[in-house]
Amino acid sequence: MTHNIAILGASGYTGAELVRIIATHPSFRIVALSADRKAGMDMSDVFPHLRHLDLPKLVKMDAIDFTNVDLVFAALPHGLSQALVKDLPDGVKVVDLGADFRLRDPAAYEKWYGAAHVATNLQKTAVYGLTEFYRDQIKNARLVAGTGCNAATVQFALRPLIAADVVDLDDIICDLKNGVSGAGRSLKETMLFTERATDVQGYAQGGKHRHLGEFDQEFSDLAGRPVTIQFTPHLVPVSRGILASCYLKGDAQAVYDVLNKTYANEPFIVVLPFGQQPGTGHVAGSNFCHIGVSADRISGRVLVTAALDNLCKGSSGQAVQNANLMLGEDETAGLMMAPVFP
Amino acid sequence: MTHNIAILGASGYTGAELVRIIATHPSFRIVALSADRKAGMDMSDVFPHLRHLDLPKLVKMDAIDFTNVDLVFAALPHGLSQALVKDLPDGVKVVDLGADFRLRDPAAYEKWYGAAHVATNLQKTAVYGLTEFYRDQIKNARLVAGTGCNAATVQFALRPLIAADVVDLDDIICDLKNGVSGAGRSLKETMLFTERATDVQGYAQGGKHRHLGEFDQEFSDLAGRPVTIQFTPHLVPVSRGILASCYLKGDAQAVYDVLNKTYANEPFIVVLPFGQQPGTGHVAGSNFCHIGVSADRISGRVLVTAALDNLCKGSSGQAVQNANLMLGEDETAGLMMAPVFP
Amino acid sequence: MTHNIAILGASGYTGAELVRIIATHPSFRIVALSADRKAGMDMSDVFPHLRHLDLPKLVKMDAIDFTNVDLVFAALPHGLSQALVKDLPDGVKVVDLGADFRLRDPAAYEKWYGAAHVATNLQKTAVYGLTEFYRDQIKNARLVAGTGCNAATVQFALRPLIAADVVDLDDIICDLKNGVSGAGRSLKETMLFTERATDVQGYAQGGKHRHLGEFDQEFSDLAGRPVTIQFTPHLVPVSRGILASCYLKGDAQAVYDVLNKTYANEPFIVVLPFGQQPGTGHVAGSNFCHIGVSADRISGRVLVTAALDNLCKGSSGQAVQNANLMLGEDETAGLMMAPVFP
Amino acid sequence: MTHNIAILGASGYTGAELVRIIATHPSFRIVALSADRKAGMDMSDVFPHLRHLDLPKLVKMDAIDFTNVDLVFAALPHGLSQALVKDLPDGVKVVDLGADFRLRDPAAYEKWYGAAHVATNLQKTAVYGLTEFYRDQIKNARLVAGTGCNAATVQFALRPLIAADVVDLDDIICDLKNGVSGAGRSLKETMLFTERATDVQGYAQGGKHRHLGEFDQEFSDLAGRPVTIQFTPHLVPVSRGILASCYLKGDAQAVYDVLNKTYANEPFIVVLPFGQQPGTGHVAGSNFCHIGVSADRISGRVLVTAALDNLCKGSSGQAVQNANLMLGEDETAGLMMAPVFP
Repeated sequence: MTHNIAILGASGYTGAELVRIIATHPSFRIVALSADRKAGMDMSDVFPHLRHLDLPKLVKMDAIDFTNVDLVFAALPHGLSQALVKDLPDGVKVVDLGADFRLRDPAAYEKWYGAAHVATNLQKTAVYGLTEFYRDQIKNARLVAGTGCNAATVQFALRPLIAADVVDLDDIICDLKNGVSGAGRSLKETMLFTERATDVQGYAQGGKHRHLGEFDQEFSDLAGRPVTIQFTPHLVPVSRGILASCYLKGDAQAVYDVLNKTYANEPFIVVLPFGQQPGTGHVAGSNFCHIGVSADRISGRVLVTAALDNLCKGSSGQAVQNANLMLGEDETAGLMMAPVFP
Repeated sequence: MTHNIAILGASGYTGAELVRIIATHPSFRIVALSADRKAGMDMSDVFPHLRHLDLPKLVKMDAIDFTNVDLVFAALPHGLSQALVKDLPDGVKVVDLGADFRLRDPAAYEKWYGAAHVATNLQKTAVYGLTEFYRDQIKNARLVAGTGCNAATVQFALRPLIAADVVDLDDIICDLKNGVSGAGRSLKETMLFTERATDVQGYAQGGKHRHLGEFDQEFSDLAGRPVTIQFTPHLVPVSRGILASCYLKGDAQAVYDVLNKTYANEPFIVVLPFGQQPGTGHVAGSNFCHIGVSADRISGRVLVTAALDNLCKGSSGQAVQNANLMLGEDETAGLMMAPVFP
Repeated sequence: MTHNIAILGASGYTGAELVRIIATHPSFRIVALSADRKAGMDMSDVFPHLRHLDLPKLVKMDAIDFTNVDLVFAALPHGLSQALVKDLPDGVKVVDLGADFRLRDPAAYEKWYGAAHVATNLQKTAVYGLTEFYRDQIKNARLVAGTGCNAATVQFALRPLIAADVVDLDDIICDLKNGVSGAGRSLKETMLFTERATDVQGYAQGGKHRHLGEFDQEFSDLAGRPVTIQFTPHLVPVSRGILASCYLKGDAQAVYDVLNKTYANEPFIVVLPFGQQPGTGHVAGSNFCHIGVSADRISGRVLVTAALDNLCKGSSGQAVQNANLMLGEDETAGLMMAPVFP
Repeated sequence: MTHNIAILGASGYTGAELVRIIATHPSFRIVALSADRKAGMDMSDVFPHLRHLDLPKLVKMDAIDFTNVDLVFAALPHGLSQALVKDLPDGVKVVDLGADFRLRDPAAYEKWYGAAHVATNLQKTAVYGLTEFYRDQIKNARLVAGTGCNAATVQFALRPLIAADVVDLDDIICDLKNGVSGAGRSLKETMLFTERATDVQGYAQGGKHRHLGEFDQEFSDLAGRPVTIQFTPHLVPVSRGILASCYLKGDAQAVYDVLNKTYANEPFIVVLPFGQQPGTGHVAGSNFCHIGVSADRISGRVLVTAALDNLCKGSSGQAVQNANLMLGEDETAGLMMAPVFP
């Protein structure tokens, strides 16, 4: 059965990544693509790498006839999905790749995003889109909130450990190395090639990054008490990829066993042999997440590292994985492409 | 129908790229992987990006039982395929990704590769693997010789023009910009990250590059008289991609029309709108080749540029495309993945 | 003797490069830095790599007291220098790094830059800043027009050959590979890290690039008759560097001898041994230009390649070299730093 | 006064970096360059970026007449300096850039380097080369042991804090991002361009890195009791640069004040305004180290980050700084070049 798909915000990188994935998806058909500033253009002019595809022209959002649409991917800047989703026909399912529906608590949303939520009723019904941990709710959801890409990476490393209570919840430090595409395609001086090509630098340090709202919500829920992690992302000169190095206190072997057992049957989460480290280059272009565990020379210290492609498993791949569940397809449909290396 | 596939030389980049492509191919099944120095290792230790796949262990070539194999991809260093192919059971089809069977004339082989060919009978039967131009012969071939990656790129730009006689055959200059993976995975000081990351430099200049043997053979055959092009490759700091800038004398619109018409129904060759330039980043990870045509301010001069991914369309993707034809499958099976950008 | 220096447009890359060079210059002292949008900021906030220096704050141009200034470097967007230089006190010398005074013919200026020149009297007095060929005029100039970075690279390769009449003037093809910093620090989607990091692509092809105005002027003057070259730049993912591959018709050894003799005593121009190729990585961060000559397998064809750092020898290094001459200092003062490799 | 300098191991990256720095040093003159495998070659063939310099040919070490030499820089693989330095004439001063004399305790040396030290008498006399903290001893030393590049970076961040006792000594976590040149120029598959260009990956995790020997020695000495830090380096795709992110427990403002005060008069150590992060791109090519301090949202947690160029301040720049002191020159002679950005 073919499902009709609309992508809102198709001129950004997560929009393009959705098109890339759907290009070889067995049952999704793109019927509408929206972009605001670039409405009227052909997708091939905005993204020449998609030129071989027969795609609808980019239009303004309000030019789309949603009666014909089974599922909408909303890859919009933060804040724009709230109003939009409210007005969609009831039968249209939505996977939101932005931040609008990630936080269940309106106060938390306002704290991290600086404005009151305008669709708080919808916010309550949204399911958090970390597929491996919300699979059953996602199957029945009308609205799924894609996670932050950093939030996904770190949660793959930490959720099983927090749930199993094998690490010290009060001393979790996550140091991330982030590919530049996480900043999107918008024009910022700091994202020019020349600024980034030979630079490695931390940013949003000390607790300013908005994905912390997701960590606080999810980890506290999971632990049944407040959990506050320390989290610092760093920009590194690759286009795709996040490597999360999580410094934990606990027994390395116990940590490894929990992760290994949790992910034994997961199609996309690969736990490496004990002591091996994942690399971003080994997951780029794919929906896989690689996880490594190493003991430290200091007894009781363990390093858990997770690598994924922020545009794919961290965003658009996750979105398709969720859409598959929502539309009754095989969860892995269209997503088994191997990473591109070198 | 499932076809049993063996890959010889699986520890190199073209070997890994074959595995990547076949991972989502609908009817190919890998039953054997060989590597010489790395025999005994798991593919996931040699190429961690393929860890999610269930693959046979790497073995020495002579440990493979070929009676069970439908088609062999030989991704071996130059010179090693000749002896091997001779000894394979007759029923096994072969796609050779190396240089051993590209040149039909033994004297030309010896000139460019510095040693006499040891399987000259086979050499005569090999079909040159530029799919778009040798499609019918490839369908019935037992042995197909994959083209050089530079040779493929330039031929996509020039063959239709030489055949249609719309450019001056005595004044063809091709300046190539080459991704580093073309040098393979072997250890050379000049291929270290530190040597290449900030450098752009020509090599094999002046007519020393072995792919010239292919150009001389193919273009002269096509023109019915000797054609000798000028060709200089340059290393640029990308892993994948070749951009060929071909400086030609002829009428730009006539050139464009010939290319446009020739490739109108080709699934993998995309001719851009007149005046647009292709980029290597827009074909990376895919089997597509983008071609652009521009007129110069000097009347009678035309620039034709072609971009493809050397590991995919220039080598392993081409090989699978040929194998599809040889095994009676749809030519595009397993090859429609969109380029990965950014 | 210390010379007081003002830099206009200090928030761009050529401005920063001037500061970098002058930081260890024995007799230049920076007394004023201007920036338009960033006026009021510290240079260390605009360019953190210059934080160790004690520099004046960025101000608007009209806040500078030029009576105190010996020489002005104008690193402004094209079109802004014309008006400015007119109004400077007569005693202030000017090195303009922009395009405003490169073309001596007002009609040529209007053709390439799309607007009439507003300081045509000054335009006549400006000396073209290719130091090695205009040394004597530069010494006595009040206003020197820095060359385009592409224009400098190609002229180093070709001027001696045109002057010596050893190549066919009607068949000169120059294929350039250009580092991204040539596009400056302004915000363009195509200059984002993600757009450039894995891409190689031609631009301004077919004769649209403004540096052609300089080639036409200089080569025609030199030859005493119109010379029109074919020139295509390509963006490659390095921050600094231009590699010009010039395809010429002539005798390779004669070409080599002319270049070798012309540059025998030049401190910054290095002619490599015959047959060797220069690399951009071997001149980055320096004021050197490396030139290589190779014969082609086709008799009568020769490849001349030149590599330099577009921000240094192609722009700010050249500017300091000229300023040294204008102020009576040693031409190499402050410019002998070795390239930074790797 | 001119000092005669010999560089042993000149065909590696730290050797080339010494030549780069000395090229503009006011009082150092290179009289001998050694290389083992590349003896007999010109330096310009091994490092084309140094072609403009008039340098001695590379020779085997035993072909050098040391009677003429004032100071030797030994940039040799670990283990080779011990035997060599023993046999040098007494009057020759030595700066060793390798690991042979970094550890004062022979047992520690054997633990980390896997072999007994063969010059234990000399080992006792060597001064640890972290200039800013061993300045007085270095002035009078005959033999100075250059620090590890990671060891230098982390010590600049931590030494003042350990000395001032403002952080918890039992909970120090250092996550490093390392440029690839730290691996040197030797041939390793993992250091090929293709392997590193799009990859970020940890290595030597869990306490295996040899620089831990230096940390244990220096921090324990400083604290007067055993201090054991947790330390994980990660390879990132830049040629030069180390960014150390140090996760500490202590008061952020107190930490900042200590660092600010300690480095107030240091010419090469720059403490950024509170809350700002250093970038490797802002120190590349220079002898500067930038340090940033940020408070975390969790009270009592502080992030201290330090960035330097591993080949310069982390190795060859440090070596020249020490040589300046040993030879009675100004400590900053030849080292004030500004970072190269972009």
